[in-house]
Amino acid sequence: MLENIRVVLINTFHPGNIGAAARAMKNMGLSNLYLVEPEVFPSEEADSRAAGAKDLLENAKVVSSLEEAIADCQLVIGTSARTKRTFDLPLLDARKGAEQIVSEAHNGQIALVFGRETMGLHNHELQQCNIHVYIPANPEYPVLNVSQAIQLLCYEVYMAAENKSYKETEEEYPRHKEMTLFYEHLEKVLRLTNFIIPQHEGKVVDKLHRFFNRSRPERTELNMLRGILTSVEETVEKLNK
Amino acid sequence: MLENIRVVLINTFHPGNIGAAARAMKNMGLSNLYLVEPEVFPSEEADSRAAGAKDLLENAKVVSSLEEAIADCQLVIGTSARTKRTFDLPLLDARKGAEQIVSEAHNGQIALVFGRETMGLHNHELQQCNIHVYIPANPEYPVLNVSQAIQLLCYEVYMAAENKSYKETEEEYPRHKEMTLFYEHLEKVLRLTNFIIPQHEGKVVDKLHRFFNRSRPERTELNMLRGILTSVEETVEKLNK
Repeated sequence: MLENIRVVLINTFHPGNIGAAARAMKNMGLSNLYLVEPEVFPSEEADSRAAGAKDLLENAKVVSSLEEAIADCQLVIGTSARTKRTFDLPLLDARKGAEQIVSEAHNGQIALVFGRETMGLHNHELQQCNIHVYIPANPEYPVLNVSQAIQLLCYEVYMAAENKSYKETEEEYPRHKEMTLFYEHLEKVLRLTNFIIPQHEGKVVDKLHRFFNRSRPERTELNMLRGILTSVEETVEKLNK
Repeated sequence: MLENIRVVLINTFHPGNIGAAARAMKNMGLSNLYLVEPEVFPSEEADSRAAGAKDLLENAKVVSSLEEAIADCQLVIGTSARTKRTFDLPLLDARKGAEQIVSEAHNGQIALVFGRETMGLHNHELQQCNIHVYIPANPEYPVLNVSQAIQLLCYEVYMAAENKSYKETEEEYPRHKEMTLFYEHLEKVLRLTNFIIPQHEGKVVDKLHRFFNRSRPERTELNMLRGILTSVEETVEKLNK
């Protein structure tokens, strides 16, 4: 079940942190590491800090976008030092977040996303997540080193899995890629119905992303929504003939 | 209350780990760092890894023995990757250990002791502890980097303090130094009564240390034990006259 959980690191600057992340993951039974445009990789420093977890570095997947790293995931967790809700997404602490992860990991791929050393995740990355997770910390100095944050999250995941302090979900959720296709479909239809007009795009697409990322339709619900979109398309096409 | 908890690092080899430890501590609201014979300190690498926690390095106390670092402590926690009990001391996982620490931190000094990068704590150091704590981890690769272990323990302490998931103890425990004086007294009296004889020292002193470190007499109980020892001394002296 832990094998369904991946760690995604975005634009890591210090290769030592990648190595430390690999070791921290393996210590807690995780093995899938995704690197989105790392500054330096592979690197000797990463190997050295990884110690007995070099296999995770050898098998790490280097990709060019967050999108690519999470395409097949049904649950994407964004980690952030912010302790206030942003984008109306649910905000959980590391312990509760880990319980959520473990409750879904038996039937789908899950991504734990960590941002840059200096500035964490950008807004457009946080928007692609379903849940935000923060690590409770000293309010006067709350920002952890990224490899330490990874260690803590992976530890909480390991503890939640060991203690079975969670209830397994029965819902099946769509993958991130399916959601992307749905958003494309939705936008296309809303342009067809002139709900979105080129002169006044506004932030409607962003707002719809936020709403659906938060509400997390199950797979059957998504199929239903896709069916509604198709019915609208067909009706409009028929009338246009 | 967190100000009564110190982290003690023994013979740290990589100065980067000292810096990372300082940051990890400050992130979790701890501030007292003791360094027992560090390999290199102060150091630029430690400063760099400490980031916003350089004040902890500036105030760190460098001492020449574990004894010195814990003399005024009533509770000494030894961290170890071993998950089997050694020396008959109680063995707790990080979460339970943190609850124990926080339950006593309101009325006495507490030490969290971490060993060398390569080999952890030596037996004679583990023997000076009241409790051993381990971090639950992947049995195939359980040994964490020392700064990561510090991060996890400090986090659990912070969580326990925040959640008040503990009951405050009312007992007053003697300091480590008082226990040391008691052991000296005890040994002196046992030589006087020929319970310990120079030709057959055996391991009786070690065994007594283990017993009393585990049973943790309260301060009033220790005073009583000291009274008993004194009464024996006086009786023997009187009879020898």
